[in-house]
Amino acid sequence: MKSTGSDALVQQVVERFADTPDPRLREILGSLVRHLHGFIRETGLTEREWMQGIEFLTAVGQKCDDRRQEFILLSDVLGASMQVVAVQSARAPGCTESTVFGPFHVEGAPQVADGGDVARGAKGTPCTVRGTVRDSDGRALAGATLDVWQSDDDGLYDVQRPGLQGAQGRGVLKSQGDGSFRFESVVPVPYPIPTDGPVGDLLRASRRPCQRPAHLHFRIQAPGCETLVTHVFRSGDPHLDADPVFGVRPSLVADWPAAGPGRHEMHFDFVLQRID
Amino acid sequence: MKSTGSDALVQQVVERFADTPDPRLREILGSLVRHLHGFIRETGLTEREWMQGIEFLTAVGQKCDDRRQEFILLSDVLGASMQVVAVQSARAPGCTESTVFGPFHVEGAPQVADGGDVARGAKGTPCTVRGTVRDSDGRALAGATLDVWQSDDDGLYDVQRPGLQGAQGRGVLKSQGDGSFRFESVVPVPYPIPTDGPVGDLLRASRRPCQRPAHLHFRIQAPGCETLVTHVFRSGDPHLDADPVFGVRPSLVADWPAAGPGRHEMHFDFVLQRID
Repeated sequence: MKSTGSDALVQQVVERFADTPDPRLREILGSLVRHLHGFIRETGLTEREWMQGIEFLTAVGQKCDDRRQEFILLSDVLGASMQVVAVQSARAPGCTESTVFGPFHVEGAPQVADGGDVARGAKGTPCTVRGTVRDSDGRALAGATLDVWQSDDDGLYDVQRPGLQGAQGRGVLKSQGDGSFRFESVVPVPYPIPTDGPVGDLLRASRRPCQRPAHLHFRIQAPGCETLVTHVFRSGDPHLDADPVFGVRPSLVADWPAAGPGRHEMHFDFVLQRID
Repeated sequence: MKSTGSDALVQQVVERFADTPDPRLREILGSLVRHLHGFIRETGLTEREWMQGIEFLTAVGQKCDDRRQEFILLSDVLGASMQVVAVQSARAPGCTESTVFGPFHVEGAPQVADGGDVARGAKGTPCTVRGTVRDSDGRALAGATLDVWQSDDDGLYDVQRPGLQGAQGRGVLKSQGDGSFRFESVVPVPYPIPTDGPVGDLLRASRRPCQRPAHLHFRIQAPGCETLVTHVFRSGDPHLDADPVFGVRPSLVADWPAAGPGRHEMHFDFVLQRID
């Protein structure tokens, strides 16, 4: 039987995972144990604080259902989701940067022809979005799949409107032979992340703002290239410096200028990392 | 807007908690963020692994109900509960060591007179438990409150038997004028922690044993002394080296010798840290 002083205990727990057959799981559990124990030792966590932590995590789990993922939200506001993006995106210079995926993507969104309408009835100021998709060697990518999604003028995604029939503010289109793409939508606006659960309690207890800066989501896939998951943000948005999920990167901020009465436009050129 | 490279992101998230009014909460959140990000960076956690972690934590939360606390179990098997005990128990030499509280304590257990029966019908080999309670200055503590609880011969606590009326294997008694105590109970046996939830999946994936060595729980409270939460383990138990919750300390292992036909006895002397 080993001594269970603090140092020895960490080692003892790590060793208890030594027979884990999957070497990657063993590595992850070992690192998790060292950092979890490091946190407890560094803070001198009390029994009462530990119990508050247990109750908080339990409430986060119990807030989750088919339409709500409170643990992703917790990961987002702790910057953990963005750190996962950061450690995985060692791309060549010049490639478009990634950001968080977020909880509002839906697989199988409607196919939209080049120049077609992605808003599909979503409220908001009309906006034309155009740009190009190239690879890191500078070649135009024809037939790349662009999956785009966004909130409407109320700051709500279609999946946040329980009564709504059919997709709004989302669609899938292909880039043209010259790598260009174009679609019609509405200008995105800032919106608050959901604050009616334990993560909202955490943000209030730490006096943190909950408004995300306005953005348009893109997932771009092309053969031979790394899939790009990112947003394009609106320059001048007052929330760019305080995104509660830490998703803003300066290279992803674009102008959305007026383009005639009651209309805007936005242009963005994407560059995907080649992997073949 | 700040750069969100890995290092900068950690700092950015910590700073976002800078306005937290409660300084202790701010300290805890800062440490949590640094260790959480350290874990992600050290392992190079992928999006897929991150999502598996999200799904695991969600399942842990959703396994919890009025009779089951899967997050405490997770904390226990990761050694976190025992580390909280370890960082809080910087006691004077000679004081009895603490260990994990566990999930099976019930407040308001039946009062038992000195020499009385704690088993209250619990199955098992009869056993007399006796000992003394002293403080760290060596003085006998009269009137100390001893809260004791244990599983029966099937390895089950009373709260794990849904149909059972009334308490079994638990009771509250007082030490006598000379600091002594004595009660009748049954010999504890090893038992498995619950493995029908996500924590069970984790133990199976890491080939970890789930049997706790046999033990008797004590919580001892006396005015002017730090409350002691501990177990007494049975010497010779084959699971002492592999307690899944890391609760064993060599100083807490005692003999439970035979004391006549079909009877055992156990003697343990407790020493509580003075705090006044």
